Amino acid sequence: MTRRDPDDVFAWLDTLAEERGRAGLRRQLRPRRSDSDLLDLAGNDYLGLARDKRVTGAAAAAALRWGAGSTGSRLVTGSTELHAELEYELARFCGTQSALVFSSGFAANLGVVTSLGGRGSSIVSDSFVHASLIDGCRLSRAEVAVVGHADPGAVEHALTTRRTERALVVTDSIFSVDGDLGPLPELAAACRRTGAGLVVDDAHGFGVLGDGGRGAVAAAGLIGGPDVVTTMTLSKSLGAQGGAVLGPRRVIRHLVDHARSFIFDTGLAPASVAAALTALSVLREEPERATRALDNAANLANGLRAAGLAASLPDATVISVRAPSPEAAVTWADDCRAAGVWVGCFRPPSVPDKVSRLRLAARADLSEADVERAVEVITRCAPPGAAAS
Amino acid sequence: MTRRDPDDVFAWLDTLAEERGRAGLRRQLRPRRSDSDLLDLAGNDYLGLARDKRVTGAAAAAALRWGAGSTGSRLVTGSTELHAELEYELARFCGTQSALVFSSGFAANLGVVTSLGGRGSSIVSDSFVHASLIDGCRLSRAEVAVVGHADPGAVEHALTTRRTERALVVTDSIFSVDGDLGPLPELAAACRRTGAGLVVDDAHGFGVLGDGGRGAVAAAGLIGGPDVVTTMTLSKSLGAQGGAVLGPRRVIRHLVDHARSFIFDTGLAPASVAAALTALSVLREEPERATRALDNAANLANGLRAAGLAASLPDATVISVRAPSPEAAVTWADDCRAAGVWVGCFRPPSVPDKVSRLRLAARADLSEADVERAVEVITRCAPPGAAAS
Repeated sequence: MTRRDPDDVFAWLDTLAEERGRAGLRRQLRPRRSDSDLLDLAGNDYLGLARDKRVTGAAAAAALRWGAGSTGSRLVTGSTELHAELEYELARFCGTQSALVFSSGFAANLGVVTSLGGRGSSIVSDSFVHASLIDGCRLSRAEVAVVGHADPGAVEHALTTRRTERALVVTDSIFSVDGDLGPLPELAAACRRTGAGLVVDDAHGFGVLGDGGRGAVAAAGLIGGPDVVTTMTLSKSLGAQGGAVLGPRRVIRHLVDHARSFIFDTGLAPASVAAALTALSVLREEPERATRALDNAANLANGLRAAGLAASLPDATVISVRAPSPEAAVTWADDCRAAGVWVGCFRPPSVPDKVSRLRLAARADLSEADVERAVEVITRCAPPGAAAS
Repeated sequence: MTRRDPDDVFAWLDTLAEERGRAGLRRQLRPRRSDSDLLDLAGNDYLGLARDKRVTGAAAAAALRWGAGSTGSRLVTGSTELHAELEYELARFCGTQSALVFSSGFAANLGVVTSLGGRGSSIVSDSFVHASLIDGCRLSRAEVAVVGHADPGAVEHALTTRRTERALVVTDSIFSVDGDLGPLPELAAACRRTGAGLVVDDAHGFGVLGDGGRGAVAAAGLIGGPDVVTTMTLSKSLGAQGGAVLGPRRVIRHLVDHARSFIFDTGLAPASVAAALTALSVLREEPERATRALDNAANLANGLRAAGLAASLPDATVISVRAPSPEAAVTWADDCRAAGVWVGCFRPPSVPDKVSRLRLAARADLSEADVERAVEVITRCAPPGAAAS
């Protein structure tokens, strides 16, 4: 116990901030304007639907009709008919028995992992999974084994040597930093051989992979399986906000009874629910958006690699380009922005291997000229040491 | 390890569901219609702003102008000028150096508790705090001491006997189930005597308590303190969606650098941000809404108590009415709903003391006749054994 001046209680944060500054790890919010003319390769609006007039019109109409907020928890006043319709349509589109909408993908992952993997169960997790799955594991009170990235052999070993009857494997489909696809069929096979459930975060696969954009879990032939649970966001391909869980009816029912991030959270705003519903119907009518997003990603990555940069080969829309240091990554991203191209800049702790990167996301609505311009600017702004080795 | 049929992997959930059913603890989603004519005493729209035309109009306009979603993390593309404006206005209204908007109050609480109370620190928590603060404590890796409800002596004892230099006290202002106000001045004094920081979740106080609805922390004279951090929601008094943290600049800056539920989450949708901004300006122009909400709560509680029911005395807008059992609470709430009055029904695990209750929330836009009708219906539908003892 230390008695101290109230002004000093949080002074330790200044010390931390200085350390972060010296390591090139400070973060800064840079609010964007509504009329920005930057070429956006930083956002996750993969299908170009966030500003689609049908989608924004549906959001606006829902706010006027239903109100600006849902007014309560989903179990009290926060469930509207719109929520039920979106859950029905998501399940029908993807081919699962049921679906449940959360206020974010983060909340969906917390809810699933804590509700399916409690005390007396084991969770085996890929070491590169999204922060929300990691936090779900930490909260779950299960015995958690973190294994190497994309290593189904290590997953199966952990499953066969576990000390609990119940077990869960958690993975991203498309990993959010490098954009690579996890070994879903191998993980599913390991689960089936060992009686484990499989939880896949399809945040970056839904809308772009699989037949008509049904996602990576569908592409792997796993969607609808009685032992498979898929999570996704409404804020990436669907251009809105929120998250969802898709899976067997008994799992969804259990989440309603048990998931703290569902029960103790305010329901998603009607405008976001309506936007996601309309975006889903656009995706159904225009499945070519998914293909265009994937083609643009491939062209972008190929262009950067041809220019000698260490760009990842995208399995979906996300591409990473390695930078020599956190500071170099920041300068690189800043220089691109000054040249009109907005790219993401990922540094520790947002990168699992501590390597700083540019992070690009292709979109369905990029033109060929956009892709060429992006390759040119990113290459021209590259710092010394950025070339692929 | 157990090899089993994939159909059986999640079969344990059916057993749990049956147990819950026998204990009267199943939960059911009941989507509402947009034209429901129920008298709503279940939602958290305390100021009646969720459907205010100025607020819904601002939400609709923002969706059309900015897009249906924010398209990315707040640190990438998910910060618009609207977000910055809301943060500025919230801090200015409440009197703190800074504010930060999260996608939910749940996420705000997770972010604050994990970022201010890490390994090597202590957290002392009231046992009745909101689930999101509890989950924040569980995630924080701090040494957590949970003390009795509203017991500043126990808090101070835990603070003085702690083994770490850094410490944090976490509490709700208005507790979400019974609607009682925590002992904020005493907690702040204990913090100051022992060098601890104070984190207050003002979800149910902001908008209704304090000068002009500035909240319970302001009412206690604590807002703006260098050792005080306030969290709140945008989904209750402000009628929108989302959460926020208000506090010293160094704390907010640290959250931007550190809070996983901020960094790894998609930014709040522009429509929700705009709705909260407009609701805040309505509150500023019409501070009498706060008083009306409080008056209605007092009248509602007094009416129920006069009728012999075990209604709590509200310190803000939330009232609880004890029920003899979970099943009786469900039937009571159902009967009220059939009679046109919508009340919340809180059962374990949503009640900290395992006592099932009706949970009512008064609103600024209830008429005297609404309050009378609510008292009449709730009293008429009361089950045997519901009378205050």
